[in-house]
Amino acid sequence: MNDSKHLYEKTLSTQQIFEGKVIKLRVDEVLLPNGKTAKREIVNHQGAVAVMALTDEGKLVAVRQFRKPLERAIVELPAGKLEPGEEPLACAIRELKEETGYEAETFTHLSLFYTSPGFADELLHLFVATGLKKGESQPDEDEFVDVVELTLEEARELHRSGEIGDAKTVVALFAWESREFYGTK
Amino acid sequence: MNDSKHLYEKTLSTQQIFEGKVIKLRVDEVLLPNGKTAKREIVNHQGAVAVMALTDEGKLVAVRQFRKPLERAIVELPAGKLEPGEEPLACAIRELKEETGYEAETFTHLSLFYTSPGFADELLHLFVATGLKKGESQPDEDEFVDVVELTLEEARELHRSGEIGDAKTVVALFAWESREFYGTK
Repeated sequence: MNDSKHLYEKTLSTQQIFEGKVIKLRVDEVLLPNGKTAKREIVNHQGAVAVMALTDEGKLVAVRQFRKPLERAIVELPAGKLEPGEEPLACAIRELKEETGYEAETFTHLSLFYTSPGFADELLHLFVATGLKKGESQPDEDEFVDVVELTLEEARELHRSGEIGDAKTVVALFAWESREFYGTK
Repeated sequence: MNDSKHLYEKTLSTQQIFEGKVIKLRVDEVLLPNGKTAKREIVNHQGAVAVMALTDEGKLVAVRQFRKPLERAIVELPAGKLEPGEEPLACAIRELKEETGYEAETFTHLSLFYTSPGFADELLHLFVATGLKKGESQPDEDEFVDVVELTLEEARELHRSGEIGDAKTVVALFAWESREFYGTK
């Protein structure tokens, strides 16, 4: 079942297109299993962490943030990019504190997934945080967020209206509904 | 709650970097809420559709596919890019048939999410397909996939081992566990 050699695409050449602060872009020419060639457009990203933080009252701590690719603000789990060499858990603790002011007694790993493996290598680590204590938020200099606290029903309503609608937050909502991963609900 | 004008980032200038077959890349200079400026790296994608197809025996129809950004094959929901002007449902019917050979009696909308809104506008439409009938698959010329059929337990095991691990498929697994959306389990 794990034998996937016959699907392999060998790199014939690589063209670096762009190197930015968040992503890099390259185009690889690959040799397909049928002997033909194709181009693959590949975005490199250092990976990210998101936190599903649940208060003792069973509310989800989320952030409203303007997303330039969408030209609007959406409500998401607190999240951020991994810094070079940073452990995902350390990043989770840091981002939750920076964006929301919350510190948590317990972080539990919930899931790990590639956001869009067809063109990007971004890997997202998703944690659940409980035992929250509120302090002061410390957003990055170019980061502007509103903190909101939502019941499951409020979060569902925001998903229906389109205000919640990104992969990590949708994973968290389905996980919340499945009730298997933590006691707060 | 919906007032997010104070988070808005106005575009000051746009630099087009790349236009490929799958994605475009541009860098916008934006005016931040605090009056400073910042660069935003933005990937444009035409959007995609994924299908959580469940057989009458309660198995998930998935595809193993080599993903060049990851340099390995992973197991995912059948999925594909929207063609210009294409309805998501028409795309779901087409991609399921092309990649797996299956046709379905019923398609139900399950979720809609941005895969990575920090840098990309890719929107993914996720459908559940039931009442499956097997025919011949017709993959695209540069697409090579193995079709696998998985019980929920087998799918969970592949997620634990890392063979399943992309956003749309993880959403489907959590949805499958939450049992709310369909009768097959």
